[in-house]
This record gives sequence, structure tokens and C-alpha cells, in this order.
Amino acid sequence: MATLIAPEHPSPVADAEGIRNAVQGLGTNEKTIIAIIAHRNAVQRKLIRYAYEEIYQEDLVKRLESELTGEFEKAVCRWMLEPADRDAVLANVAIKQSTSVHRVITELSCIYSPEELLAVKRAYQARYKHSMEEDVAAHTSGDLRQLLVALVGTYRYDGDEVNLKLANSEAKVLHRAIKEEVIDQDEIIRIVSTRSKAQLMATFNRYKVDYGTSITKHLVDDPANQYLAAVHTALHCINNPKKYYEKVLRSALNKPWTDEDEDVDVLTRVIVTRAEKDLREIKDLYYKRTSESLDHAVANAKHTSGDYKAFLLTLLGNQD
Amino acid sequence: MATLIAPEHPSPVADAEGIRNAVQGLGTNEKTIIAIIAHRNAVQRKLIRYAYEEIYQEDLVKRLESELTGEFEKAVCRWMLEPADRDAVLANVAIKQSTSVHRVITELSCIYSPEELLAVKRAYQARYKHSMEEDVAAHTSGDLRQLLVALVGTYRYDGDEVNLKLANSEAKVLHRAIKEEVIDQDEIIRIVSTRSKAQLMATFNRYKVDYGTSITKHLVDDPANQYLAAVHTALHCINNPKKYYEKVLRSALNKPWTDEDEDVDVLTRVIVTRAEKDLREIKDLYYKRTSESLDHAVANAKHTSGDYKAFLLTLLGNQD
Repeated sequence: MATLIAPEHPSPVADAEGIRNAVQGLGTNEKTIIAIIAHRNAVQRKLIRYAYEEIYQEDLVKRLESELTGEFEKAVCRWMLEPADRDAVLANVAIKQSTSVHRVITELSCIYSPEELLAVKRAYQARYKHSMEEDVAAHTSGDLRQLLVALVGTYRYDGDEVNLKLANSEAKVLHRAIKEEVIDQDEIIRIVSTRSKAQLMATFNRYKVDYGTSITKHLVDDPANQYLAAVHTALHCINNPKKYYEKVLRSALNKPWTDEDEDVDVLTRVIVTRAEKDLREIKDLYYKRTSESLDHAVANAKHTSGDYKAFLLTLLGNQD
Repeated sequence: MATLIAPEHPSPVADAEGIRNAVQGLGTNEKTIIAIIAHRNAVQRKLIRYAYEEIYQEDLVKRLESELTGEFEKAVCRWMLEPADRDAVLANVAIKQSTSVHRVITELSCIYSPEELLAVKRAYQARYKHSMEEDVAAHTSGDLRQLLVALVGTYRYDGDEVNLKLANSEAKVLHRAIKEEVIDQDEIIRIVSTRSKAQLMATFNRYKVDYGTSITKHLVDDPANQYLAAVHTALHCINNPKKYYEKVLRSALNKPWTDEDEDVDVLTRVIVTRAEKDLREIKDLYYKRTSESLDHAVANAKHTSGDYKAFLLTLLGNQD
């Protein structure tokens, strides 16, 4: 369930006028902007963009980019993009930064449905005039490249039909691949990147039954190795997306402030992309795990403040 | 241009009735079947299937399967399928046979448009309840697997925009990859499988200018090595699809009869899939190259005869 709180029938024209008043003249009224857009769902925001463009003959996102600054600007502008287009931008940023590419690409492949991933790839091409595949391939190398290109490339089967015999045999293949002296990455990549999510769940369950522990526990974890981190991410994303997001948020909010920029990016990305989907369940999981509400953690995080903080908290469902 | 000769407004119901008469009772009238379906385009054939199903409550393709035999049956039934569904079947057969998988998958990735490839992948999932990617991956290994999974996976950028600087640098990368002692397959696979066709054409042209000869000439050819054969196929398919098909037909029609089954498959596949597209130009190229008409070669090939031969010749545009 979503955390976003939106009225049922707001007027796009009134919203466009409200935002126009907030950005025009000296100084910008950030509170008004938050009060409007952080309470509108994707369709409503799209209509505001249409209305704004019709009335003022300019692109609202471009205007917001020039009026706002810092993390607040980034979060607002991403929020205002259509979901597939926003994911295309997030993927492109990740590919260029390369520190988070394994995470963002894996999420798209292992959490999004095949049709959603396809929509992101189309948006990516429309925006950047090349494919997401070629950009991932050109910015990575070795095993990581092989895995990510396979993940982003595969148009997975999305049905429920599961082959239990195959789950059985591929649990064995995975176990052998992991336990050999030299890990057989080819087999791990093949299975994780091409099988349907339902099939993979069956394989992972079988793995647990046959070998007494979950596959993620058996696989070496080494955060410095981006390839291994990507495999872990894939397994977690397939296994339980909400739990995965909870973990990602927890790590961004609680670890020592070494990687501040990336942590802020993660915070923005997860909240902006999940606020209309399953952020409520993610919040519940966060509370169960830490006994602190996610809202409280965001409000007190070292790297959130001012309008940025207010915006995130509104998306998290806080009524002012 | 197509070689198929079809009337403008045939009656699907009259066609369905004509076919019904041809398949009912003792003995089948193959000539009538050819006279109807080998003169109908994809939309017309689909309407015949609808009409036949409505009137006789049975699937026309299944009925034809049970009435006809051998190569004729295979060719007719493939011709009657919707194009994307037919390609899904051809891909599945190739994946299971494994002798022609490198060819069929590469054609889909390097000749078909990204949208056409996607349609085939959707048809594949609808028919087999898993993805083409996982089947390719499960039936191949090593470099060949890596290449084919990347080829079938990539949703290429389909626009005309070309980056000439990139063409320049990737021509160098390819040259280095090919000329090194140990060929760097990773780079070859990355470039060939992910770049847009327009970009690849620019890169290949640049290669020719910089190194004096085309990239296909530089790359070792070893028909026994399926991976190298796949790379060659990809380069030819991207470079000039019609010339590629001409060459494939020539080789199937003229080489000593060692691989007869596969040659017949190739003949059926190319004629059935191209008759409505560009078989006329392929025929012209064939004549230019061999001074023999393709029709004549098909009529006199050792592995064509009877109704199968008559069917192919009709698709090739022969009026009886």
C-alpha cells in the first residue's frame, strides 16, 4: 500500500496556478510546492504538467529545476517525472556513477515486472537515444557486466507456472556453483538472470530444504566486490522486495556517514519510487526491525533537513 | 518486396470451405490447399483461420498437421501461423536442435526490429510458458551462451542517431579484440549485442576505412566453432540482411548433401519468413550471384519434390 495521501479530484489548473505563484517573483515558496505535489498521485501530477504547459507555455519540471536547489530539487523533479521516465533517469545516473549501478539495475530486473522494465527501457531510449543495455555494458566489465547486461536484457516469463523438477535440478546447480573452489559464475548468472521470478522462488525454496540454509547465507558477501553485491541484491530482490527496500533504507539511515551522497540518493530513490506502491508495508517492516518509525529516522537523519526533509516526510504520509 | 501473389479481397469463408473440402474424406487435395493459402497474405490467412474455427469448430493448423506429412506439412503449418508465433516455433526448434540455434537467434536479434523481436519473445512465452532467454541459456554454454543470451536479450535502440566518435573508438576496440593473441570475446559480444544497428554500421564502416578491409574478413571463420559462426552471422545480418539470406539459401541449395535435414529446414524457414517481406530482392541477389534463378535452383534441388516443391515455388511467386 501507498503512503501517499492525495485528494480524489484536485483541479490541475488550480494546482498549476498555485505552483506558478509559488515559483514566480523573488524567492520561492517551497511549502506551497510541497503542499501541492507531495499530495498528488502520478496521474494527477501528469495533468498538472499538462495544465502548466498549456497555460504558461513552459515545462514545469524545467522551471522547478531552475527554481529549486540541492537534494530538494532532485527529489521534487524526480517525483514530478512519469514513473518509467524517472526510473530511466535513475538508471542513467547510476550507470554513470557506477557505485550504485548494481543496485538500481538489479532492482529494475528483479523487482519490476517485465512490462514495467520494458517501459523503463523505452523511456530510456526516448530520453538518451541509446539503449540501457549498451550503456550498462559500456560502463561495466567482467562478471559484473555479464550479470547486469543479462539482468537488464531478459524479458522474463511472468506467469505462475513453475517446473518443480527444474527447481530441484537448478538448486543443485547453484549449490555446486557456489561450493566449488572456483565459483561457476556462468551458471549463477544464467539462472538468476533468465528464470521467471516464480521459478526462482521455487528454486530458492528447494535450496533451503536441501541444504538447510538459504542461498544468500551460502554465497560469500563482500561489499567491496560489486559483482557479488549484485548477486546478493538480485537474490534479495526476488525473495522479498519489501524486505529488501527496508534493508536498503536502514543501511542508508544508520550506517556511519562515509558515503553520504550515495545514502541521500538511496533515500530519495526508495521513497520517491515506492511512495505510491508499497511504502506503507516497508515502513511497517522498518518499525518491526528497529523499533523506530521510519518517519522518525528520516526526520532525525544527519543528511536530511529543511524542505528536503519536509518533502520526504510528506511522501511518507505525515500530515503537517 | 514480397514474392507472394495474393488477390486483394478473397472471401475467408469461401477459403475456409475450400480447404475443408480439400482435407475431408479419403485423401487430401494438396493442390487446392496450395492454390488457396500460398496466395494469401498474413492478415488473409488469419481471417481464414478465424472463419474455419467459427464454421467447423476446430483449429485449422491442427487439422492440417494431421492431414499432411513431411516437409510439406511443416512448411504449410509454419506458413499458416501468425508471423511472431511462427518465429517463436522456429526459435524453439532451433534451440532444441542446437545445430541452427546460433543462426536463428542471431537473425531475430540482428535483422528483426526491436519491436518485432519483442513480439516473438511474447509469442514464445505464450506458447511455451517460459522465456526465450532462459531456453537459450539452458541449451548453450560458454561464449556461445554469453553471445546468444545477450543478442536475444537486448532491446536495441532503433533510432538513426549515430555517435561517430564512438564508432571510431569501438572500431579500434574491435580491431584490438580480434588481433590480440587471445581474442577478447567480451568486448566483441558487448558491442555486437548491445549497440544499435545504425551505430554498428557506422562502426563497421569506420573499421573498413581504418584497417583496409571489412571486419568479417579479419575475424577467423571456423564453421565447426558455433560461437565464431554466430559472430559472423551477426555481422552479416547487421551489414546486409538480404545478402545474408541469399548466402544462406545458396549454401543450403548447393553444398554437398551432408546435412540434408538442416538444409531443408533452412529452405523452408527463409522462404516462409521472407515471402511477404523481401524475397524478391533476395531472388535478384541470388540470380546476380549464381546466374541461376532461385526458382530454378529450388525446383532442381535434390531435397525438394512433390507438393513441398510446388508450395515453395508458389511462395516464390511462380504462377502455375
